[in-house]
Amino acid sequence: MIVIMKQSATSAQIANVTARIEQSGCRVHLSEGEERTIIGIIGNGRPLDREQLERMDGVERTVPILRPFKLASRDFHPQDTVVTINGVTIGGKQLVVMAGPCAVESHDQLLETARAVKEAGACVLRGGAFKPRTSPYSFQGLGEEGLRLLAAVREETGLPVVTEVMDPHKVPLVTTYADILQVGARNMQNYTLLHAIGEAQRPVLLKRGMMSTIEELLMAAEYILSHGNDRVILCERGIRTFEPYTRNTLDISAVPLLKQLSHLPVIVDPSHGTGKWRLVEPVSRAAVAAGADGLIIEVHPHPEEALSDGAQSLKPARFAALMRSLRPVAEAVGRTL
Amino acid sequence: MIVIMKQSATSAQIANVTARIEQSGCRVHLSEGEERTIIGIIGNGRPLDREQLERMDGVERTVPILRPFKLASRDFHPQDTVVTINGVTIGGKQLVVMAGPCAVESHDQLLETARAVKEAGACVLRGGAFKPRTSPYSFQGLGEEGLRLLAAVREETGLPVVTEVMDPHKVPLVTTYADILQVGARNMQNYTLLHAIGEAQRPVLLKRGMMSTIEELLMAAEYILSHGNDRVILCERGIRTFEPYTRNTLDISAVPLLKQLSHLPVIVDPSHGTGKWRLVEPVSRAAVAAGADGLIIEVHPHPEEALSDGAQSLKPARFAALMRSLRPVAEAVGRTL
Amino acid sequence: MIVIMKQSATSAQIANVTARIEQSGCRVHLSEGEERTIIGIIGNGRPLDREQLERMDGVERTVPILRPFKLASRDFHPQDTVVTINGVTIGGKQLVVMAGPCAVESHDQLLETARAVKEAGACVLRGGAFKPRTSPYSFQGLGEEGLRLLAAVREETGLPVVTEVMDPHKVPLVTTYADILQVGARNMQNYTLLHAIGEAQRPVLLKRGMMSTIEELLMAAEYILSHGNDRVILCERGIRTFEPYTRNTLDISAVPLLKQLSHLPVIVDPSHGTGKWRLVEPVSRAAVAAGADGLIIEVHPHPEEALSDGAQSLKPARFAALMRSLRPVAEAVGRTL
Amino acid sequence: MIVIMKQSATSAQIANVTARIEQSGCRVHLSEGEERTIIGIIGNGRPLDREQLERMDGVERTVPILRPFKLASRDFHPQDTVVTINGVTIGGKQLVVMAGPCAVESHDQLLETARAVKEAGACVLRGGAFKPRTSPYSFQGLGEEGLRLLAAVREETGLPVVTEVMDPHKVPLVTTYADILQVGARNMQNYTLLHAIGEAQRPVLLKRGMMSTIEELLMAAEYILSHGNDRVILCERGIRTFEPYTRNTLDISAVPLLKQLSHLPVIVDPSHGTGKWRLVEPVSRAAVAAGADGLIIEVHPHPEEALSDGAQSLKPARFAALMRSLRPVAEAVGRTL
Repeated sequence: MIVIMKQSATSAQIANVTARIEQSGCRVHLSEGEERTIIGIIGNGRPLDREQLERMDGVERTVPILRPFKLASRDFHPQDTVVTINGVTIGGKQLVVMAGPCAVESHDQLLETARAVKEAGACVLRGGAFKPRTSPYSFQGLGEEGLRLLAAVREETGLPVVTEVMDPHKVPLVTTYADILQVGARNMQNYTLLHAIGEAQRPVLLKRGMMSTIEELLMAAEYILSHGNDRVILCERGIRTFEPYTRNTLDISAVPLLKQLSHLPVIVDPSHGTGKWRLVEPVSRAAVAAGADGLIIEVHPHPEEALSDGAQSLKPARFAALMRSLRPVAEAVGRTL
Repeated sequence: MIVIMKQSATSAQIANVTARIEQSGCRVHLSEGEERTIIGIIGNGRPLDREQLERMDGVERTVPILRPFKLASRDFHPQDTVVTINGVTIGGKQLVVMAGPCAVESHDQLLETARAVKEAGACVLRGGAFKPRTSPYSFQGLGEEGLRLLAAVREETGLPVVTEVMDPHKVPLVTTYADILQVGARNMQNYTLLHAIGEAQRPVLLKRGMMSTIEELLMAAEYILSHGNDRVILCERGIRTFEPYTRNTLDISAVPLLKQLSHLPVIVDPSHGTGKWRLVEPVSRAAVAAGADGLIIEVHPHPEEALSDGAQSLKPARFAALMRSLRPVAEAVGRTL
Repeated sequence: MIVIMKQSATSAQIANVTARIEQSGCRVHLSEGEERTIIGIIGNGRPLDREQLERMDGVERTVPILRPFKLASRDFHPQDTVVTINGVTIGGKQLVVMAGPCAVESHDQLLETARAVKEAGACVLRGGAFKPRTSPYSFQGLGEEGLRLLAAVREETGLPVVTEVMDPHKVPLVTTYADILQVGARNMQNYTLLHAIGEAQRPVLLKRGMMSTIEELLMAAEYILSHGNDRVILCERGIRTFEPYTRNTLDISAVPLLKQLSHLPVIVDPSHGTGKWRLVEPVSRAAVAAGADGLIIEVHPHPEEALSDGAQSLKPARFAALMRSLRPVAEAVGRTL
Repeated sequence: MIVIMKQSATSAQIANVTARIEQSGCRVHLSEGEERTIIGIIGNGRPLDREQLERMDGVERTVPILRPFKLASRDFHPQDTVVTINGVTIGGKQLVVMAGPCAVESHDQLLETARAVKEAGACVLRGGAFKPRTSPYSFQGLGEEGLRLLAAVREETGLPVVTEVMDPHKVPLVTTYADILQVGARNMQNYTLLHAIGEAQRPVLLKRGMMSTIEELLMAAEYILSHGNDRVILCERGIRTFEPYTRNTLDISAVPLLKQLSHLPVIVDPSHGTGKWRLVEPVSRAAVAAGADGLIIEVHPHPEEALSDGAQSLKPARFAALMRSLRPVAEAVGRTL
């Protein structure tokens, strides 16, 4: 960290800041410019609180030098992390497509969808049992019954299952049924949940919050990693902007940026990222071309009857066409699908 | 709700949409324009899912006519809601100032702050025992020990206490100690938490998420209200924008807008709303002038030693000066302080 | 357009609104719901001002049914527009890559870059003679001397030239030298400039403003089209969001969305869209996979000495590698490069 | 400026960066930390281009220490700038309210409005002759005829006039008629216009772009100041965010922040800042309480017939009521109105 003093800072103020830094076990490097004095902190300054220093007399501001995430960073862990679940690997050469309905509605709906997406090439089944909904009057998911249906359809199709957990106290329950635990966008900074997930023995699909920076996403991953769970899959799913024609603005640059900053696998959710099924296909191709390790896509046999997110769900035939169109793009960037 | 059909919609498609609407018990009002047919839904269309209709063939988009919140709306409840806690009323003519440290650190720190803010005119003590922090390596709060200190200082000063609860399963515990339960910005759409809070017997301070629209804030209030807790206090605390000079952009228009749309009391958090103590004073005056029912302000006896949010905390003497400067503004808009 | 009346609207207020609409030559379609009356406007309501109607007593709000752009819309002009300049076609099966330095600095710099990008497969040369710079103290471009250098290098290489025009009164001057006139992001709503460009006899590259919606971009195109110039190329170059790790957030969904809404060609600027040269390559591949008709990329022989935007410029060798990596992606989506 | 080297930077790379800095006449201060080397630049580093340095091998990023604006900064010019026009002072103890219609429509409309706002206490007349409109089909203003009407009404009422200029070549024309030249939000970074305005002999009202940071606003002011015109009035008018209930999000913190960073007067436009006349009154009071030097407010005798922005215009009676409600707030913060 660097501390930039005000033009008007006195030598007593500079001495105070220096003393504070040295108390924390760091050394100080003073740089007296023509207009300002700058104090460099040498040693592990992570425990030093920027805000405390910024409130000291004579300080203008501080500048962090190191990224605040460590376990999630590629500096710390240069090789790619590859997560394996029931024979499916995420983060390797082979792309992974997770597909299924937004919400689990019935055994028939889930099984029909699972069979169709498996045949088209998906290798993980998605489906929500606990649904975060903006309105208390909307369908909130089938709960544990939904988990049971997911497990049943896994038996019937062999597809591992990813599903969201919202309540930290339900992590053990969801772990009983699911192969991958999903942290939804609205819960990306629900630290109680991240803590519980960090202690679970399951891979995690961590979705970027709709108004979270890339650094905050990596800090959320850091929470999970620092509690002992190192199988974290990052998911870009669009951020909130001023543009009203799409539900979210998918941040395509986040894909290569996350791959550069971190060793964790990165997948993309074009369904929530766009909110419109007509955009899912081109944006899926873009995600693969940008280097994503996989996709998570909403598919529903009858989207016009879906209990949630029908507007962004593909029908099975469109999904199959999408998968066919993705293969040459995957090959063009040296991946397989 | 209104359904706008595509220019190319066939009469069979229009008939399908009409049939779907009528199945749900609503009536249909058809309007055939020169370029489009528009289908109005008459009756209580709330249970009809917009997304389902938008996926039907021939539909271009739908337009909601009614606001999605009901219990929180002024249409439903025209008179102002006034929340009373231990003799303090929130939402009446008298403004309420809640003040205290970001995090509870020790009995001395809390008592010193509480006495100072009480003397300056604050009537609720704030202080965090459970702290949501971006980094897993930052101070996370004293937990239950922090709650005990809050209760002890309430005994010593008579100030009721507001504190954040993050874990739905800790709602009963926090209720034992606190007079007002706070839902933090990061948890505004943590529906498990909102549900638990909705069943608690305590007033709630509900902070707007940094990524949340005014409508979403009112929908979060609707969650709490619909589970039976009608003592909700709304809090504008700044939203995230592209402006880097401030921590958040305080949405001052939200104050009169929330008062127009809803009957619930509205307070403003200028500390998080700006992130800079130098801006807290002018923005507090602005909030009162805009019609806020109160303020929640961070005060710390030694902000340069605060374990969190030192940069936005006022020292007791500045807080007292702020309170003095607020009184004439309050009077200028017909309020008392 | 639809007018939604307040719940409390009187029949006299409804009659007033009806009369106003009928004065403008439209017919009215009344729909009396249980909670609100809704007034549909039948006929060409474009001349009716929404804001006027919204100020009438009893009106809650209005909802536009038709998109406000016409000449730019695919409804109006279903076939793709293909723009041809000196044998280069933009908007057809063949992708177009425009490349060159951010700013024209010297004949040597420009010629060296032009030769390198031509050899790698670019077919239009970009280069700024008039540079919009945030600071009055930064390099503002060579002005007309820059235009002369662009024309000279066009002679030497055969590459047509695209360059920005900022001053409406310089449109004739820039037209003398350039093959394509560029409207920069900061000038997307400079209507005086759009008007002048609309009367020019040159294709236009219209960049999306950094905080402009897709609808506003198409309305800016509408300005140019409505003044008689129908050779408009749209350019997605990233929008401003809260994310600080990238200069802008490239809105990849805008590519297919613009292609669906409009008949105009769409190209992508990954250099400004990301601001980091390390991201240009993956994001270029994503743009092609998403259906873009081309790219505009900053290339500089010595970016560490560039007078502007060095951080986002590719060296010629990297650009050549990028072009090689783009070809299989182009083929994967049925295009050629 | 500070240059942060990568962890992997070699001593040759550090030497190269050092040499480049010293070539520009600055001195270098090297700080070798445990994880990174940091290079401080001593001397006037403004001419050094951050982007060039960031492209040099071994450099991770650069951090500016000084604000990029100088003439606009309070460091450079500690006393408040007070702008005087025809006896009206802006930036002193007395608040200034500018009021009038969005667009000049007719002599009657303008005169009726001018008399009403003058009687209520406004001391500058606003009115647009050249109107930037999103649609080419909307009313674009009366042009020079509108300027003549403004000048005529000034004669009749004694109110000085502020009006927008959009075309750099029309600056002399508008200067003939207007007392204050307005730069609109969409033109805040139209550098050709800022240059022309900088050479005009008239005070300038510079509106913050809807997409512009506070630093960019001050840099736009710097353009005008650096071309010789030192009578710049800054105007906060709301920024674009994700919130759809208001037209813009008025950034109330910008008022005290601009007053701290700069010596220039700051006024607020609550009409565009909210887009809803019902919000203009409370937000005006907030602006005064936050320390604004004045307001610019849209008033129209018949807003439901206004040719633009009717939804945000006050009727004269409401404006008079607003002025009455502002006076006690002004007094509460030590100002007069």
